[in-house]
Amino acid sequence: MTAWLPTLTTATPQEGYELAVKLARVAVKLTQPDAEVRDRLRPEYAEDSDALIAISQIVATHFATVAAANGYWRDKS
Amino acid sequence: MTAWLPTLTTATPQEGYELAVKLARVAVKLTQPDAEVRDRLRPEYAEDSDALIAISQIVATHFATVAAANGYWRDKS
Amino acid sequence: MTAWLPTLTTATPQEGYELAVKLARVAVKLTQPDAEVRDRLRPEYAEDSDALIAISQIVATHFATVAAANGYWRDKS
Amino acid sequence: MTAWLPTLTTATPQEGYELAVKLARVAVKLTQPDAEVRDRLRPEYAEDSDALIAISQIVATHFATVAAANGYWRDKS
Amino acid sequence: MTAWLPTLTTATPQEGYELAVKLARVAVKLTQPDAEVRDRLRPEYAEDSDALIAISQIVATHFATVAAANGYWRDKS
Amino acid sequence: MTAWLPTLTTATPQEGYELAVKLARVAVKLTQPDAEVRDRLRPEYAEDSDALIAISQIVATHFATVAAANGYWRDKS
Repeated sequence: MTAWLPTLTTATPQEGYELAVKLARVAVKLTQPDAEVRDRLRPEYAEDSDALIAISQIVATHFATVAAANGYWRDKS
Repeated sequence: MTAWLPTLTTATPQEGYELAVKLARVAVKLTQPDAEVRDRLRPEYAEDSDALIAISQIVATHFATVAAANGYWRDKS
Repeated sequence: MTAWLPTLTTATPQEGYELAVKLARVAVKLTQPDAEVRDRLRPEYAEDSDALIAISQIVATHFATVAAANGYWRDKS
Repeated sequence: MTAWLPTLTTATPQEGYELAVKLARVAVKLTQPDAEVRDRLRPEYAEDSDALIAISQIVATHFATVAAANGYWRDKS
Repeated sequence: MTAWLPTLTTATPQEGYELAVKLARVAVKLTQPDAEVRDRLRPEYAEDSDALIAISQIVATHFATVAAANGYWRDKS
Repeated sequence: MTAWLPTLTTATPQEGYELAVKLARVAVKLTQPDAEVRDRLRPEYAEDSDALIAISQIVATHFATVAAANGYWRDKS
């Protein structure tokens, strides 16, 4: 896997949120490296509200980390 | 997606809580960008107590982040 | 919705815990604003041990936030 | 409900853990105040490994809070 | 129950992780004190991937606490 | 089990993420030490989107710890 996470620093809270979404996705790739299997699973969870909610929880956990890493972007507001 | 998260700073704890609710919802949009599919799923989870509870958990996680970002609004009370 | 969260500051840890319970409940109201639907769901989850356990987890997450906001009430003990 | 949480301070990590267990239980009482219903549910979850695991997760969340409140009992070791 | 948690301090991150595993297990003992029932449940969850994953989540939560308690063992590396 | 966790310090955020993945896996090994059983369970969860999502949640929790341990790699960016 090539470099995909050079830093946790982002310019804005919104970019930090997008990074959290990315962080949530990569773990799935590392546990199921077969892209074909992942492609097969995607339609399943993308239309399953339980799965969408569970993914949102992971994003929340990563967003907490990214936000802390950026000092909550306090000096940007 | 246009700018939707300029800052984590809010005037009151209650506005911070409302921001946490928003943060919980956006992850679903980013994972399932098709508004039609989301509209189909909404009635399902909005009447499912397990889903409502799971959403409340996500809000709790985001509220922790927003509260920390605002120094717990200590100087407001 | 009228003002329901003026501050995270509470006089005692116990009041902080009660605030955490309240914080857990409000997210459900904001996701399912129809009081009639919520009243229909309540007996279901109130007699379902899985749901009660899940609610207790949310309370735990909010209590962490409220406790931090109050400096763990260290100067009260 | 009478006073049950005067402080988060405990003499030892083990007492802190026991407090975390208590904190996990009280949320259930506040959501389902009917002792009879709770007594009916108890044998169910006490013999259900999923429920026991979920309770242990709540204890872990509360223990994090209690441990932070006590400065991790560093000066006791 | 005899003393089982004298301190959160460990010599290495690995010992901290082992302590986190222990912390995850004790909550089950305190909720289901009957060793016979626990012995009956063990084969069930030890061969159930959902249960193993849920236990790993609890360990992660406790490890966060133990790591913070030890200042992340920064002066050891 | 031989030494597998000498430090939480990593050179980059990406290595920190890989360490989080490892931390998520080891708990399963410690709860189910029989490699044969684990090998039997692997295909099950690796093709189950709920399990993949749950594992990603554990990675998120460990990543928070590793990131804090490394001061969020702020001086690297």
